[in-house]
Amino acid sequence: SGFVHVKNLHLDSMEEDILYHLDLGTKTHSLPAMFGDIKVKSRCQSEAAVPPLHRLSSLVSQSSAGPCQGPTAANAPTGLGLTGTDISFLSFQQHGMGIPSISIMLHELIKLLHHAKCQDVTIICIGTSGGLGIEAGSLVITDTAVDSSFQPRFEQVVLGDVLVWSTELDKDVAEELLACSRETADFPMLISHTMCTYDFYKGQGRLDAALCSFSSEKKLEYLMRAYDAGVRNTEMESMAFAALCGLCGLKGE
Amino acid sequence: SGFVHVKNLHLDSMEEDILYHLDLGTKTHSLPAMFGDIKVKSRCQSEAAVPPLHRLSSLVSQSSAGPCQGPTAANAPTGLGLTGTDISFLSFQQHGMGIPSISIMLHELIKLLHHAKCQDVTIICIGTSGGLGIEAGSLVITDTAVDSSFQPRFEQVVLGDVLVWSTELDKDVAEELLACSRETADFPMLISHTMCTYDFYKGQGRLDAALCSFSSEKKLEYLMRAYDAGVRNTEMESMAFAALCGLCGLKGE
Repeated sequence: SGFVHVKNLHLDSMEEDILYHLDLGTKTHSLPAMFGDIKVKSRCQSEAAVPPLHRLSSLVSQSSAGPCQGPTAANAPTGLGLTGTDISFLSFQQHGMGIPSISIMLHELIKLLHHAKCQDVTIICIGTSGGLGIEAGSLVITDTAVDSSFQPRFEQVVLGDVLVWSTELDKDVAEELLACSRETADFPMLISHTMCTYDFYKGQGRLDAALCSFSSEKKLEYLMRAYDAGVRNTEMESMAFAALCGLCGLKGE
Repeated sequence: SGFVHVKNLHLDSMEEDILYHLDLGTKTHSLPAMFGDIKVKSRCQSEAAVPPLHRLSSLVSQSSAGPCQGPTAANAPTGLGLTGTDISFLSFQQHGMGIPSISIMLHELIKLLHHAKCQDVTIICIGTSGGLGIEAGSLVITDTAVDSSFQPRFEQVVLGDVLVWSTELDKDVAEELLACSRETADFPMLISHTMCTYDFYKGQGRLDAALCSFSSEKKLEYLMRAYDAGVRNTEMESMAFAALCGLCGLKGE
């Protein structure tokens, strides 16, 4: 059907679903009217001077400050999208740093898409990351998010029990994004694994935390192991993003 | 000596320490001149109409928007502080949600206090939380942060290895804060354990996530176990806060 999969039977019996951190609710707002048409369907022109990803990124950064502001069919620039592909799009201005923060946003975004009856949605997460053995300024397209042991899993504690979810992202979207890069040559682009950590400093081997008990040699040894496992960049949200998109039937990348 | 303990030998050999997320650096800014005097030493008057914590909280929320804005001796309102205690104070406007986000702020704050040669610093973390079997509007003073298995520990992955740190907070500061409440009677105040989770929704037993596979009964059973273990509120940062304060010789509460 293309609708977002919300897998929570409790929601059906709730009188109102309040999206706390978005300041929205099913009784106070008409979510289908507000957000049901948030869809950008257009094709990127191969002769476009600006690479599609630059436009996408630019659109995200230009969207206005509200938590759910994004391009609609009415205000989307002509030509936004991926070559040969229709893309549905909803931008969030910020989700904060780290898995706990993006998880809150994603749970509420997914419920918003569900309540708004959006269909065929692709979510693209764009952000900075630390490169690993690649040229500075490269764009890494994540095929799989891995944890700090380089495993493709997201562990979450639910009522004291550890649940484990897959963190593979949509291969087709990754390939389409890479294909876009072939039309342009102004920055390197690659598909690889992305390592996701809970800590910016010691979790990613930085030596300049307030506390650091490991040597520069141990740091390099660890990062070499990550590289050998296929990791080309590190950041702090991709595991939760990949897991939640996969579980809810969203194309995520 | 009262100085902040930064336990990282690498820092001494670095030409410059850049506090990335605070937009500050040891070469670009004179940190002792800018922040060395950030200290509020005053005593709370027992006859004060406004409870000390209200003032403290109010001061945090009123501080201007920069990342390191806080009260100094020059602009601090008379009377701020805890009864019978001198208190050093530095406020941050926001640290975002979750352990990864507060960890970044804490590492950089602790290095800032170190570079600025601040002494005898107490950090008080104020925020909202979900109550557990207590009156709405209560103020919970955390004696120990516990994880989702109700254990007083903070586990962090460093170069692929799991390190475990204690999460007990300063008992004296907790008692002093409680003593303040005895001077006022306009909200309930208690000392207890605080449960810290990585997830706002399922991690804290909420039924309104995008995904939820547990029943209301299982939720209540889990929260009852938390209550029996001494937990009276839940939030998302206290484990990292307690561990880092303890490791760096800061009085944290």
